[in-house]
Amino acid sequence: MTTENGESGRQGAGHVDDSFHVFDTTLRDGAQREGINLTVADKLTIARHLDDFGVGFIEGGWPGANPRDTEFFARARQEIAFQNAQLVAFGATRRAGGNAAEDPQVKALLDSGAPVITLVAKSHDRHVELALRTTLDENLEMVRDTVSYLRSQGRRVFVDCEHFFDGYKENPGYAKAVVRTAHEAGADVVILCDTNGGMLPAQVQAVVATVIADTGARLGIHAQDDTGCAVANTLAAVDAGATHVQCTANGYGERVGNANLFPVVAALELKYGKRVLPDGALAEMTRISHAIAEVVNLTPSTHQPYVGVSAFAHKAGLHASAIKVDPDLYQHIDPELVGNTMRMLVSDMAGRASIELKGKELGVDLGGDRALVARVVERVKERELQGYTYEAADASFELLLREEAEGRPRRYFRTESWRAIVEDRPDGTHANEATVKLWAKGERIVATAEGNGPVNALDRAMRVALERIYPPLAKFELVDYKVRILEGRHGTESTTRVLVTTSDGNGEWATVGVGENVIAASWQALEDAFTYGLLRAGIDPAE
Amino acid sequence: MTTENGESGRQGAGHVDDSFHVFDTTLRDGAQREGINLTVADKLTIARHLDDFGVGFIEGGWPGANPRDTEFFARARQEIAFQNAQLVAFGATRRAGGNAAEDPQVKALLDSGAPVITLVAKSHDRHVELALRTTLDENLEMVRDTVSYLRSQGRRVFVDCEHFFDGYKENPGYAKAVVRTAHEAGADVVILCDTNGGMLPAQVQAVVATVIADTGARLGIHAQDDTGCAVANTLAAVDAGATHVQCTANGYGERVGNANLFPVVAALELKYGKRVLPDGALAEMTRISHAIAEVVNLTPSTHQPYVGVSAFAHKAGLHASAIKVDPDLYQHIDPELVGNTMRMLVSDMAGRASIELKGKELGVDLGGDRALVARVVERVKERELQGYTYEAADASFELLLREEAEGRPRRYFRTESWRAIVEDRPDGTHANEATVKLWAKGERIVATAEGNGPVNALDRAMRVALERIYPPLAKFELVDYKVRILEGRHGTESTTRVLVTTSDGNGEWATVGVGENVIAASWQALEDAFTYGLLRAGIDPAE
Repeated sequence: MTTENGESGRQGAGHVDDSFHVFDTTLRDGAQREGINLTVADKLTIARHLDDFGVGFIEGGWPGANPRDTEFFARARQEIAFQNAQLVAFGATRRAGGNAAEDPQVKALLDSGAPVITLVAKSHDRHVELALRTTLDENLEMVRDTVSYLRSQGRRVFVDCEHFFDGYKENPGYAKAVVRTAHEAGADVVILCDTNGGMLPAQVQAVVATVIADTGARLGIHAQDDTGCAVANTLAAVDAGATHVQCTANGYGERVGNANLFPVVAALELKYGKRVLPDGALAEMTRISHAIAEVVNLTPSTHQPYVGVSAFAHKAGLHASAIKVDPDLYQHIDPELVGNTMRMLVSDMAGRASIELKGKELGVDLGGDRALVARVVERVKERELQGYTYEAADASFELLLREEAEGRPRRYFRTESWRAIVEDRPDGTHANEATVKLWAKGERIVATAEGNGPVNALDRAMRVALERIYPPLAKFELVDYKVRILEGRHGTESTTRVLVTTSDGNGEWATVGVGENVIAASWQALEDAFTYGLLRAGIDPAE
Repeated sequence: MTTENGESGRQGAGHVDDSFHVFDTTLRDGAQREGINLTVADKLTIARHLDDFGVGFIEGGWPGANPRDTEFFARARQEIAFQNAQLVAFGATRRAGGNAAEDPQVKALLDSGAPVITLVAKSHDRHVELALRTTLDENLEMVRDTVSYLRSQGRRVFVDCEHFFDGYKENPGYAKAVVRTAHEAGADVVILCDTNGGMLPAQVQAVVATVIADTGARLGIHAQDDTGCAVANTLAAVDAGATHVQCTANGYGERVGNANLFPVVAALELKYGKRVLPDGALAEMTRISHAIAEVVNLTPSTHQPYVGVSAFAHKAGLHASAIKVDPDLYQHIDPELVGNTMRMLVSDMAGRASIELKGKELGVDLGGDRALVARVVERVKERELQGYTYEAADASFELLLREEAEGRPRRYFRTESWRAIVEDRPDGTHANEATVKLWAKGERIVATAEGNGPVNALDRAMRVALERIYPPLAKFELVDYKVRILEGRHGTESTTRVLVTTSDGNGEWATVGVGENVIAASWQALEDAFTYGLLRAGIDPAE
C-alpha cells in the first residue's frame, strides 16, 4: 500500500493525517440527485460547511464540462481559505487515440488550479467497448498517459474505477489491470466504484481484499446506495483494507444516492475508534447536516441516522423509568457526541422539559412557573397544528414565549391593512406596488413602495412607514426567504408557510408566517421579523 | 437448527415454505415511528397489502396492551382471508413471581386468536435488573414458563431477545442462556434483536454464527437502523445462518427506523437467488410500498432503494449514449422485476443522447436530427442557468422540444397583460383579485376573478377568459403547487421557481415557471399548464 504525500499533496493544516482519507463528493456526485440544482454560491457555501466539518478532500465538480463548475473552482480559490480540506477537480482520462498533454479536457483540470485531481477511468470491459468505443489496451494507455501527465504537472492524482465491481464479475483480470496501471503510473489512490450500486457488503469485502493482495495499490471505495447498503459497503471495504472513503453529505446522489458521509464517519470514529476528523468536529455533525440540507433546499430527513431529529426520540411508556435511571441502556451512543439530543415524545413532561430548556437557551427565564410552561406548550401545539414550525424560527418562538411570560405581545406597531399589486404590462415588464396602513406611537401612517416582487414591495413599504419612528430599522435586511406549501394536494388552496431570515449586520434571526396565501404568510413573517429586530435593538415597545 | 412446523404452525396456502421466514412487524414496531398514528381500519388495510405481497407472518400488535390492537385482532380474524400470511400477536413474558397460566397479559395473547405469538424477553442482564427489576434466574424462569404454557395451548411461539447484542457484549453467557431456555421450552425461532440499533454487519455476523453453534436454536434477526446498516445487518445474520428476518414496510420504526422489508426481500430474491415470496409478488413491490405510505399518510420516499421514483432515474449525460446501447450496463437490476421503471432526467449535465432518449419517451420523434438535438441541448442549458428545471416538469420540456422541432411555439392564446391584487382588510379578511387581458382566435378578452390567493385568482381569471373558446379547459384542475426560491441569500430579490401539477381527470402534467417574483413565475407555469393541457386534448393551436 502506497501512502504518498508529495508537496502538492499536503492537506489543510488542521487535518488529522494522510493515512486515511475522508473524501466528500457532494458537490460533484451528490449534485446528480434528482431535484438538486446548485448555484455557484450554493456550492461555495457547502464547501465551507464541509471544510468546517473537517473532511480531507472536497470534490468540487468537473471544470470544463460546464461553466458553473469552472466558475466554482475560480471563486473557491479566491474566496475560501480552507482549514482542513483540499479541493479536488474531477475529470475523465484523455480521449482515445489522443495525447494527455494536448487534451482540452485534461487542460481544463489543470487550469482549475485544484491540487488534487480525480480521474474517472473505465474498468469494466464492456463499458470500454460500448461506452468509450475503444480497445481494452487503448483504455489502459489512456489511464497511464493521463495519470503520468498530471503527475508530471505536480498534481496529486486519484483514479475512480467506474463500474469496478460489475466489471470484476465479468473480467477480473482486466479490472485489476486498470487498477495496476493507475497505481504504476503514479495514482496515489485507486478507488473501486460500485457505480450501479448493486453490491452487498460481503461481496465488497472479498473483492477489495483480493485486489489489494493482487495489485499492492492503495484502495478507496465509492458506493452507491441502490441495495440500501452503501454505508455498510463502505465499512466493509475499510474492513478489507481500503483507506479512502468517498461519500456525500446526507447521502445525496444519483438514483437512490451515495454512501452517506455522516453515518460513515460516525461509525469510523465511534464504533471503530478511528480518528478521521479534527477534534470537536463530530459534535458539529447534526448542525452541518441540516445546514447543507437548507442550502440544497431539501427538507432534512427526520429519520437520518445520528443526525435526524427523530434519531434519538423515544416514545415514552414502557421504558420511561429505566431511561431515567440509565439513558445509555436505550441509546447506542450519547447523542451529544454527534450534536444531537435525546427527545421524549408524547408525554407532557417531555414537552415541558424541552420548553424550559429552550427558554433557558434563549435567555428567557420561565422561573419554574409550571402554569406558564404549560400554556406555552399548549400554544406551540396549537400553532404547529396550523402549520407553524418553531424549530427553524427561533425569533418567532421567542416572541411567543415573551408574550406568554409578559402577559401581552411585544408590539411596536399595529397593522390596519395592506395591499400588494403585481402587474404584468403589455411590454413584458412587471410593476410591483404595495401600500401599508400602520399605527405606531399613536400615529396612523400610510406608505407605498415598489419592489421587484410583492413581498419585496411590502417589506419596503413597511420600512418607509416605520423608519422615521424606529431608526434601527434602516439596518435590517431580509437575507433569506423560503416558501413551503403544506397539504400540497389541494393546489393553490393549500396552506402556505414562509420562513424569513433577517439581518441587522451583527446577527440574523428567523421568523415564520402561515396563511392561506403566500403574500399573507409573508406579511406575518415580516411583522415578526421587524418586531424581533426592534426588541433585539433594545427599543421599548410603544404603540 | 430446528425447523418445526406443527399443526398450528402451518402457513397460508400460497406461501413458499417454512424453512425461511419473512416476518413483518410494520403494524407493531413500525407504528412506533414518530408521526405514525394508525386506526384499526388503517391496520386492516396494511395487513391486506402485506398479505398480497406474500410475507409469511404479520405481527399485528400487542393485544391487551391497548384497545386498538385488541380490536384489530378481532376484526382481522373475521374480515381478512389471508392467502399467504399468518397473524402474530406480540406480548411479554409473564410477570416476575407469577404464573403464565394465570397472567392476564398472557391470557390476552391467547384471546387474540392469533396462531403465532411473539414473546419479548430480556436478554441483557442490566435490563433484567434495572427495567424488569427481577433476578437473572427469575427472568429465565419467566421465559421457560410462558413459552411452555403457550405451546401447551397449541400456539406456535417465537421469542424476541430484546437488547440481545448489547447484552451479549456485557454478558454473553447470560444472553445465550436466554436463547437456550427459549429454545428448550419449545420456541420455534429465537430472534436476536439489535434494539438500540448500534451494530455493524461484521459484528452481527460473528455473534449470530457463535450463538447458532453454541445453542442449536433456530435464529431470527430484528435490526434497528441507527447506524444506517439495518438492511446489511439483516443480511449478515442470514449469511451466518439466521432463517427468519423481521422487517417493516418502508423501514418505518422507532427513532431512525427498522430494517426495511423491501430491500431485504429484494436482496434475498435477486442477489441471493433465494425464493422467499410467492410467484409474481416481487413485481408488486413498488406499488405496495407506495400504497402503504399512502395509508400511514407519509410521502413515499423518492429515494428509497428499488421502489423510489428516483431509484432508476438517470441524470448524467455522460452515460446516456451507452444506456441506449445496453441499459443493463447502468442498472443493477431490471426495474420491472420490482415493478419500477427507468426514467431519464433532463438537466444541464444532459448531452444529446439523453435528449434523444427523452424525446422517445415523450413520443416526440427527433429523427436523429443532430442540429435539432443540439439546439434543444443549448436551450435546456441556457434555461437551466436561469433557474428552470425540466427534471420535474416534463410538460414544459415537451413544449420546448416541440417548439424547436416545429419551428414555432404551440400557442393557443397570447398574454397582453395581467394584474393581481392582494389586500389585507382592517377586519383581518383578505381579498385576492386578478385581471387578465388575453388574445385568442383573434379576439381580445378581459376577465377578472377572485380567489383565495393571488395565484388562485389568476388561474380562475384565465379560465373565465378562455373556457368559452376552449371548452376542455373546464376539466383542468391545479392539483399541486411548489415554490422554490433560488439563490436564497438575496432575500426577496432572488429568482423564484414555481412547479405546478395540473390534472384533467385522466392524467397529470407538470410545468415550470421562473421569474423575479412568485406571481410572475406562477403565471408562466400556468401558461404552460394550459397550453400543454390543450395540446393533450388534441386541440389545434389557433391564435
